[in-house]
Amino acid sequence: MMATTTRLVQVRQQILKQNDVTARALRQRFHDAGVYVVSLASSPGSGKTTFLEQTLRRLRDRWRVAALVGDLATENDAARLARAEVPVRQITTGTVCHLEAAMVEKALEDWRLEELDFLFIENVGNLVCPSSYDLGEELRLVLFSVTEGEDKPRKYPTIFNTADVAVITKMDLAAAVEFDRDAAHASVEAVRPGMQVLELSAKTSAGMDAWLAQLEAARTAR
Amino acid sequence: MMATTTRLVQVRQQILKQNDVTARALRQRFHDAGVYVVSLASSPGSGKTTFLEQTLRRLRDRWRVAALVGDLATENDAARLARAEVPVRQITTGTVCHLEAAMVEKALEDWRLEELDFLFIENVGNLVCPSSYDLGEELRLVLFSVTEGEDKPRKYPTIFNTADVAVITKMDLAAAVEFDRDAAHASVEAVRPGMQVLELSAKTSAGMDAWLAQLEAARTAR
Repeated sequence: MMATTTRLVQVRQQILKQNDVTARALRQRFHDAGVYVVSLASSPGSGKTTFLEQTLRRLRDRWRVAALVGDLATENDAARLARAEVPVRQITTGTVCHLEAAMVEKALEDWRLEELDFLFIENVGNLVCPSSYDLGEELRLVLFSVTEGEDKPRKYPTIFNTADVAVITKMDLAAAVEFDRDAAHASVEAVRPGMQVLELSAKTSAGMDAWLAQLEAARTAR
Repeated sequence: MMATTTRLVQVRQQILKQNDVTARALRQRFHDAGVYVVSLASSPGSGKTTFLEQTLRRLRDRWRVAALVGDLATENDAARLARAEVPVRQITTGTVCHLEAAMVEKALEDWRLEELDFLFIENVGNLVCPSSYDLGEELRLVLFSVTEGEDKPRKYPTIFNTADVAVITKMDLAAAVEFDRDAAHASVEAVRPGMQVLELSAKTSAGMDAWLAQLEAARTAR
């Protein structure tokens, strides 16, 4: 058993290495095309798709935006995001619990990236597996909702360590679930001191203006 | 890339095979000891631990109960479950996104299983990875909360296909999140026709009596 496990790890490292090579090429391609790429990771049901739909709707009048969305099965999320009337493509992974750079590369094969200002990549709903796979993104968000419990960062440290910004979603439900804001921030801080934390509700739009202002500023500042 | 991926799958299948051998031995050991073993899988934050704590509290006066709980990091859940004043042991998996039969076997090494009536195994919070790993359990529950969206079964079919009963948690929040009960049931039904669905709230205790009655009856009927 142990020998087999060790071999698995070695093979995984080969795949990760190949993923890094592909991600580096993607990053160069994104840079050359002038597109700012943001990825989103979270548990299933944290509100990634609703957050992304609101983000796309609010950006689309001023910017050229598009999205890739990963899931094991179904095109539900792509259908939801298509309501934002921007180009959306679904990546279905089968039983794979994360997106890999090669999947992103394949999905973008026939896209003219220089015609985009922002590209969003929504990962498979999973707080563990996406951690190790660089997708060539410029900004990686990790989301968790107030309903999930304040200790998620401490319990899933790797994804918080590989993300740039933590987003607490569903703030409109904070009172209903007796969300402990200080405990949540302390949990982020314990895993990743100084990490930026955004609090928002895609439902009430609270916090969305600040998020979009920051995002647009980051793109413009490049 | 493709060749490497194929090799990974082959090695994974070897590990799964070894897991099945270990799980079979565990199942025999559980049967011989007369302990009824229930495992729980869900996303992070679906309310597994709260549900399990209530279950342990309500069973402990009539039955001898214990729990194993898996997480990547922290012993938070074991500490929470210990409030139910029953034996609890934490399994920390590091970066592994699921429990394996060998981890359960190791955690139980020094336990006298014949002194238990029920053993609960709470998996790592993940709707993907735990699907393929038999832990020797008699009953596998998959939980999802009303806050996660009604389409979770359709989007994560493998875990629903390997579980025996679906449990919808946090029913106390159903109105606040405009939970669509019919859509949730239809989503389960689409993936696994005839699957039993329990609806409950560990917070208000709604549905807990029915769940415990069913559980005790299942053990007694053996």
